[in-house]
Amino acid sequence: MNQNSLKGIIVPMITPLNDVDTLDIDGLEKLIEHILAGGVSGLFILGTTGEFSSLSYRLRYEIIERVCKIVNGRIPVLVGITDTAIVESINIADKAAASGANAVVAAPPYYFSTGQPELVEYFDKLVNKLPLPLFLYNMPTHTKIVFEPQTVKKIAENKNVIGLKDSSGNAVYFSLLQHAMKDNTRFSLFVGPEEITAELVLLGADGGVNGGANMFPKLYVDLYNAAKARNFTEIEKLQEKVLQISSGIYTVGKFGSSYMKGLKCALSVMGICNDFMAEPFHRFRKEEREKITQCLKMLDLPMPKF
Amino acid sequence: MNQNSLKGIIVPMITPLNDVDTLDIDGLEKLIEHILAGGVSGLFILGTTGEFSSLSYRLRYEIIERVCKIVNGRIPVLVGITDTAIVESINIADKAAASGANAVVAAPPYYFSTGQPELVEYFDKLVNKLPLPLFLYNMPTHTKIVFEPQTVKKIAENKNVIGLKDSSGNAVYFSLLQHAMKDNTRFSLFVGPEEITAELVLLGADGGVNGGANMFPKLYVDLYNAAKARNFTEIEKLQEKVLQISSGIYTVGKFGSSYMKGLKCALSVMGICNDFMAEPFHRFRKEEREKITQCLKMLDLPMPKF
Amino acid sequence: MNQNSLKGIIVPMITPLNDVDTLDIDGLEKLIEHILAGGVSGLFILGTTGEFSSLSYRLRYEIIERVCKIVNGRIPVLVGITDTAIVESINIADKAAASGANAVVAAPPYYFSTGQPELVEYFDKLVNKLPLPLFLYNMPTHTKIVFEPQTVKKIAENKNVIGLKDSSGNAVYFSLLQHAMKDNTRFSLFVGPEEITAELVLLGADGGVNGGANMFPKLYVDLYNAAKARNFTEIEKLQEKVLQISSGIYTVGKFGSSYMKGLKCALSVMGICNDFMAEPFHRFRKEEREKITQCLKMLDLPMPKF
Amino acid sequence: MNQNSLKGIIVPMITPLNDVDTLDIDGLEKLIEHILAGGVSGLFILGTTGEFSSLSYRLRYEIIERVCKIVNGRIPVLVGITDTAIVESINIADKAAASGANAVVAAPPYYFSTGQPELVEYFDKLVNKLPLPLFLYNMPTHTKIVFEPQTVKKIAENKNVIGLKDSSGNAVYFSLLQHAMKDNTRFSLFVGPEEITAELVLLGADGGVNGGANMFPKLYVDLYNAAKARNFTEIEKLQEKVLQISSGIYTVGKFGSSYMKGLKCALSVMGICNDFMAEPFHRFRKEEREKITQCLKMLDLPMPKF
Repeated sequence: MNQNSLKGIIVPMITPLNDVDTLDIDGLEKLIEHILAGGVSGLFILGTTGEFSSLSYRLRYEIIERVCKIVNGRIPVLVGITDTAIVESINIADKAAASGANAVVAAPPYYFSTGQPELVEYFDKLVNKLPLPLFLYNMPTHTKIVFEPQTVKKIAENKNVIGLKDSSGNAVYFSLLQHAMKDNTRFSLFVGPEEITAELVLLGADGGVNGGANMFPKLYVDLYNAAKARNFTEIEKLQEKVLQISSGIYTVGKFGSSYMKGLKCALSVMGICNDFMAEPFHRFRKEEREKITQCLKMLDLPMPKF
Repeated sequence: MNQNSLKGIIVPMITPLNDVDTLDIDGLEKLIEHILAGGVSGLFILGTTGEFSSLSYRLRYEIIERVCKIVNGRIPVLVGITDTAIVESINIADKAAASGANAVVAAPPYYFSTGQPELVEYFDKLVNKLPLPLFLYNMPTHTKIVFEPQTVKKIAENKNVIGLKDSSGNAVYFSLLQHAMKDNTRFSLFVGPEEITAELVLLGADGGVNGGANMFPKLYVDLYNAAKARNFTEIEKLQEKVLQISSGIYTVGKFGSSYMKGLKCALSVMGICNDFMAEPFHRFRKEEREKITQCLKMLDLPMPKF
Repeated sequence: MNQNSLKGIIVPMITPLNDVDTLDIDGLEKLIEHILAGGVSGLFILGTTGEFSSLSYRLRYEIIERVCKIVNGRIPVLVGITDTAIVESINIADKAAASGANAVVAAPPYYFSTGQPELVEYFDKLVNKLPLPLFLYNMPTHTKIVFEPQTVKKIAENKNVIGLKDSSGNAVYFSLLQHAMKDNTRFSLFVGPEEITAELVLLGADGGVNGGANMFPKLYVDLYNAAKARNFTEIEKLQEKVLQISSGIYTVGKFGSSYMKGLKCALSVMGICNDFMAEPFHRFRKEEREKITQCLKMLDLPMPKF
Repeated sequence: MNQNSLKGIIVPMITPLNDVDTLDIDGLEKLIEHILAGGVSGLFILGTTGEFSSLSYRLRYEIIERVCKIVNGRIPVLVGITDTAIVESINIADKAAASGANAVVAAPPYYFSTGQPELVEYFDKLVNKLPLPLFLYNMPTHTKIVFEPQTVKKIAENKNVIGLKDSSGNAVYFSLLQHAMKDNTRFSLFVGPEEITAELVLLGADGGVNGGANMFPKLYVDLYNAAKARNFTEIEKLQEKVLQISSGIYTVGKFGSSYMKGLKCALSVMGICNDFMAEPFHRFRKEEREKITQCLKMLDLPMPKF
């Protein structure tokens, strides 16, 4: 991957499942074609939205292989290798390289808490064993640790570390990180939360890794383009839809899982794929599904046709 | 105060002290004139940056009286009434009204944790006893509770609640709050952290309540104006300075107090006022003061002359 | 106070109120006589259970005066002086001394987070201005900071620091603190949570500061005595009641305030005092009150007669 | 395993490594014989202290096989199956059963946060697929979720759920859990932190799962027996050593990893096994190793001879 070419919307793809260890293969193909038709810049599989941590390793390998085959080089594929065991992270990265993926993505190991110097040592060791360039993934709610800007700076001295996706939602952190990395021209900064992609792209972020783009890829691509073009009329119009999705589809459930359950349910309502979820989660029941259906109607966005 | 007139940079003023219970009166006058010369839109006293919680009530009353007198109507004065005891919040608000202040600002009571419905009940009771319009103040690191968007919506049904200052740094929260409040035209949204004021003003925020404006009021006013004018060349240039301040002056100390100690120390180095801090904090010692002096030099911004 | 004489059950007294700024004076007298009849070793007013932070200073002063007068030297009175402003802590301590109280109790300042060295400096300054001996109060859920064992050791080099009440519930912390302080013979260690008073007294703690003793002082005194006497048959019998109270009366409400609301409601049902609560809380409504009444019945403990 | 027979000290065994994916087989044998010579009641492998999450699955399988073979039925072997993917948890449990282990141990999935009802559903599904009885494992610092007492009660309605190990250190929680489970006679409660095992056994806990027993198994067994016998002279003497270990060996490092690094380092100094640690951690360097050596000397406990 030409390291500076990756800009725009990367989709953190959900994993369509028919059962806890069985892919919904038809759904997977439909979903990928749906996403690619939206004009996105990359596909990120086995991330948080892809329920990576809930999937068996056998299944993770199958997903990597199938997705790379379906995408077939049309856009870059990024593979999540976040794991608590460095050996398994390297194994997944090797599989990704062998399957033709373009880059890997890793959050800190997430069972034990590490200090910042321990984090630097860990990534030093990891990066040197990876066959593909690495994006860091800041996800403190799930990993219990933040990549401090000075830590990122040290890790990124290795030129195989080419960027960071920040899912903290903390825009102050993002700004200070941009400032700390401003002299590293091969380092990209992507935003996780779709609610703030527009504003951070306006201030220089390279793009968004936005879950909602599973449902409405074009909406998020259009918003990114509007932000790049500084077209505020357009930004305002599209941002309204994005916030409607966040305030609606992602808040139907009661727990932290509300976002992921809503997203998968919406894709099922839209006829794209199965909404089965790997343990510890379960798909929405009838009542919630009806709310999601209602939310989708009120959005009044173009729906895919199959 | 004409409720919709307040836009732009409001300065959360530090409190110049000569001792734990003694104002630095000369410093206070100098500081206020320095700030007003920068073209700011309002002065917010007795906030977090003003060390409100560390000051005796006697001293808080003295500050309100003196500041209102010095400002003398030139710009709106907002007074922090955040307290754990509702009786004391009302007392301070009464003093503020009697002294000629324009509005009051309140975070949730911060010793006990409250549920969201308890928060709604609390503010219902408080607002009805206030002689001045109220800004809510979201400051979860210190109060241990977030004003959820639906809670803000309920509290703001009372028309004396005219806005919210968000110091969470969580831009996703800010966006969802904007979305939830979009139909309440008399409600303003201000950003606490100066690192993200520009981007949030670009997306519709009404202004910033930025601590750095104690030192360099014009810098933050210029940045606000650039954001309002969507002048990106100017934003980029000024944002660089703002992030240099945050990465430099605010990070010299080791603890959470680093921001406040750095700010007060810089004002002392600049010759504006004493850097004495109320307990539980203490001013920087010689070594840190030299670092602050160095940071100020490297900023290369116009210094006040006295 | 003879510093080593204080052992056993100290009651963190609730504050009977008729309105937000009005004491329930009859209730106060009844409550104190009820508590003293149970054979407790001390009374701790203006603590967390006493809603100190929600009360105006005027009211805090009134409470100190009235309680000291009613108790009239029958048992030691400890006064909470926890505050965010050191000046106000000292003022309250002076009032306590003037009213005849025996000691004061202080948690760290709780709005700003402090580092451990800042905490040592703060207490150095505070202790030197206090007219009475001081107990430290570890309450991390509310103050956002733990007194680390080495910090306690440093602060307690001043001989006016005579003990610590730990309300963290973290028994590992308590054990390590005991270990760190084992050579300081004038330093006492008291347990906040009543559920673990017996076990910690068995392992050498000096006593409990247990909220339930507002309702059933004799129960907690008996449990303390059983633990001192290593009478396990008795411990088992009494501990069962204590856990029934915790699992029942303290869990009727939905929020963190459940303990305090349940306690005050029970005292009202028992005919001892008003259950009015200072903002930000409110008394239980009818439905919850009925549950509390039911819990009290099932406890089958002797009720006070008036 | 006769479900009610397991009482006393269970050792959460460290994993002796020569490299990130290579067992120290000699060390493993030495360590197991050392531990068994101390008279412990059970061996718990692949727990937190065993660095389970940092090990490849291949290595986890190897460990299960080797340990079961070495122990050869002399004491019960418990195998940690905690994982984020239910499929992998079941795989490990199957391996454990095939190798002759006696029970399995599972904490909640630890990447995603779950609500309590989601936790009940998860364990319902898991338990029904396990070939061995299950102990729950409460470890909120690492899993970000507590097993609430009512949740445990529901999960333990399935008779294959035979106990819980609580590593929270929160003794209030432990007491309330004991109370909630008091009618379930086939359910055992074990304490993680060794600092509080004595006191909780005095109050009815079934035993401790104490890391220090890797180094000094007899010390912890003696302390357990003293607590069972309510021999306070003995408890006091042994508890002093236990707290010396905690305040010494476990606090040499700077981060959360200090406990595990200290434990492994001490075992190496004692000549039992290699102190190599799996990523993200690294063994102590020379300076810290000297401190550990010093701590061991000051303990003045009998050392193993090889």
